[in-house]
Amino acid sequence: MPHLTLEYTANLGLDADAALLALNHALAGSGLFEEADIKSRAVPLHSFRSGTAATPRAFAHARLALMPGRDAASKRHLADALLAALSAQVSSPGLETQLCVELQEIEADCYAKEYRHG
Amino acid sequence: MPHLTLEYTANLGLDADAALLALNHALAGSGLFEEADIKSRAVPLHSFRSGTAATPRAFAHARLALMPGRDAASKRHLADALLAALSAQVSSPGLETQLCVELQEIEADCYAKEYRHG
Amino acid sequence: MPHLTLEYTANLGLDADAALLALNHALAGSGLFEEADIKSRAVPLHSFRSGTAATPRAFAHARLALMPGRDAASKRHLADALLAALSAQVSSPGLETQLCVELQEIEADCYAKEYRHG
Repeated sequence: MPHLTLEYTANLGLDADAALLALNHALAGSGLFEEADIKSRAVPLHSFRSGTAATPRAFAHARLALMPGRDAASKRHLADALLAALSAQVSSPGLETQLCVELQEIEADCYAKEYRHG
Repeated sequence: MPHLTLEYTANLGLDADAALLALNHALAGSGLFEEADIKSRAVPLHSFRSGTAATPRAFAHARLALMPGRDAASKRHLADALLAALSAQVSSPGLETQLCVELQEIEADCYAKEYRHG
Repeated sequence: MPHLTLEYTANLGLDADAALLALNHALAGSGLFEEADIKSRAVPLHSFRSGTAATPRAFAHARLALMPGRDAASKRHLADALLAALSAQVSSPGLETQLCVELQEIEADCYAKEYRHG
């Protein structure tokens, strides 16, 4: 932990590798995580729909799964830092766009892990 | 919010765009959400396995992430409406098929969002 | 239920079909699930980043969504069995690698399902 998943609609201007690096820097900069523990992936969405209207729309959604135990202020700060990092990476001219960040605590006692040193 | 994710095994007959529109209409028709807030995506599964038997099988799974605070009856009704909409979109002759709908409430105080008007 | 999702970075040596079968056998062998109820998918990650360093890294993450009600010991045993099955399937020479298993209980009263017999 933590695990970050960035989904983004394929009509957005977004460099996925640059976005992941920026998000990981925001996570590492929070001081809440070990640098090497951060595991992030970006997933382009080719089939998507926002609402029912014909308006051109787009969205990007970053979900962070983390161990429980952080206080509310730290989590609030983290969500805001991730949203700022994401916002700086997304170009969406002419599109109604929603950027979202969600934090989700996992159940710590149901987590198993193996490290391999390369 | 809400976010809907439709996963479906690639052996199903399913028009993803039509399915997303039908699911979004079910969400909008519930009266619980603003039309433009609904964000849905469909993800075909090319690598999947149901159980361990050699029987030809398929599944589709719609997960809805939503803000907490709706009563149990509204959520039950919503899950049933989504399942009906999904069922009408899926063709699966000769396949043991499971269609599932899951509602998941997120942690509201860990959610951050930015709107851009196109 | 249960639903298993295996994500793996594309730099790993992994036969997705073999891995899913091994994980499903671990699930079926637990005695907690009906064989046909197990629904698993594997998703290769082509865009990913672990941490901020330039070190070559990889990860695989298996998330199991299941109905609530199992005791802690059964869930612990299940997580360990899935991790062992996953570990046996992953080849990662020269890569710092993290293998993770996460169990997540869903909200049972917000789940709707339809079976079709092929």
